[in-house]
Amino acid sequence: MARYKLTVEYDGTGLVGWQRQDNGPSVQQFLEEAAANLNGGAPPVAIAAGRTDAGVHAMGQVVHIDLAADYAADRVRHGINFYLRPNPVAVRECEQVPDSFHARFSARERSYLYRIVNRRAPLVLDANRAWWVPKELDAEAMNEAAQRLVGHHDFTSFRAVECQSASPVKTLDELTVTRQGEEIHIRTRARSFLHHQVRNMVGTLRLAGEGKWTADDVTRALEARNRSAAGATAPACGLYFVGVRYDGD
Amino acid sequence: MARYKLTVEYDGTGLVGWQRQDNGPSVQQFLEEAAANLNGGAPPVAIAAGRTDAGVHAMGQVVHIDLAADYAADRVRHGINFYLRPNPVAVRECEQVPDSFHARFSARERSYLYRIVNRRAPLVLDANRAWWVPKELDAEAMNEAAQRLVGHHDFTSFRAVECQSASPVKTLDELTVTRQGEEIHIRTRARSFLHHQVRNMVGTLRLAGEGKWTADDVTRALEARNRSAAGATAPACGLYFVGVRYDGD
Repeated sequence: MARYKLTVEYDGTGLVGWQRQDNGPSVQQFLEEAAANLNGGAPPVAIAAGRTDAGVHAMGQVVHIDLAADYAADRVRHGINFYLRPNPVAVRECEQVPDSFHARFSARERSYLYRIVNRRAPLVLDANRAWWVPKELDAEAMNEAAQRLVGHHDFTSFRAVECQSASPVKTLDELTVTRQGEEIHIRTRARSFLHHQVRNMVGTLRLAGEGKWTADDVTRALEARNRSAAGATAPACGLYFVGVRYDGD
Repeated sequence: MARYKLTVEYDGTGLVGWQRQDNGPSVQQFLEEAAANLNGGAPPVAIAAGRTDAGVHAMGQVVHIDLAADYAADRVRHGINFYLRPNPVAVRECEQVPDSFHARFSARERSYLYRIVNRRAPLVLDANRAWWVPKELDAEAMNEAAQRLVGHHDFTSFRAVECQSASPVKTLDELTVTRQGEEIHIRTRARSFLHHQVRNMVGTLRLAGEGKWTADDVTRALEARNRSAAGATAPACGLYFVGVRYDGD
């Protein structure tokens, strides 16, 4: 038996998300079925650092799988990519890791990017790749408001009702908003996130960008510890799972 | 009658190109049919700065149309975008222009971007949006070789057989190759280009990037004035029509 760490890119459009579900194709299913060809036909179980929702993309999801045979890492990457086609999933990097490595439990920090395209014209080249916001947003005001969420807080106001996390208390290491031309990039890092936390924070920062909310309003929403006190959930299509940091990285 | 200058974005995937053809949907057809709704049902003729090929994208194609009624430019942009949906074409900017403005004949300079993604893993998020080249390319060597093509030359070696231009002699103002992480960007500007000229130059620069050709080999290919002396045509999906400069811009 050999364990492999895979760094995986996917286009979440049309997928039900990371996790296998009965109602449509998932990244997990595509990966496990492709890897089965390197495992005597038996699909290995793929464990991911984060279970992304339907429509969410990844540049650097991290996954581990165990294969019965001990192959060179490049051969595993190449073989899985061969069998993945034409599905919208690719293995960017592959390395053999000790059995003690666990994609989810060994993770120290996860990072996400949320892309807004802020222009009047509908999206074409970025359709399903970003959130289209036609009304002009003030990225500096969004960034100022964002700093109210950085740190150790009870994030109940930004947590999906169906969230299964044991505690709503998390430490947010970064939440930065920058503008690059007509694009607004929201970058965030934390050891872990609650379900929908990033999208709920983005939906709230939009209110600050429109001038409807002040930074103090964001603080009040946080302190309310009530989902209905914060902004709406931003759409999945703007969210990208960028990467994971592990001990020793 | 009022003339409008439209700056148009499109995803060329699955389209036959700019120009109307019998064998599939074109950008021109989508635009003319959408604009007909603002013109009493009669499709205006849309004239573009450059007739892009099947699969080629645009961020800033420039088009002019004449409408019978004199509408505010914002209303024209909004109206055409409304009727364009869900087709992969959008009007980014619209302004009313004098009748003397001609999207094609008034153009002073056209600019293109060609995107290569240079990595081992197949493309997912950039599928149909860039040329996937798995073998490592030396962007500096490509840029050095590219300078041999800048200036006033007979570009017969980089001209498609079916090119209808009166002369193969053109002045290339810029051809720059830069690397940004795993992406290689090739930017080029000229008053006008021959058919397939950008894609044929990119296919040739790839040989320099792989170390198969020196810059002197590129000069020899140029001087041969023979299409078969230069590299293969790079795929359409990496090419973007970025913009057009007009007198007074």
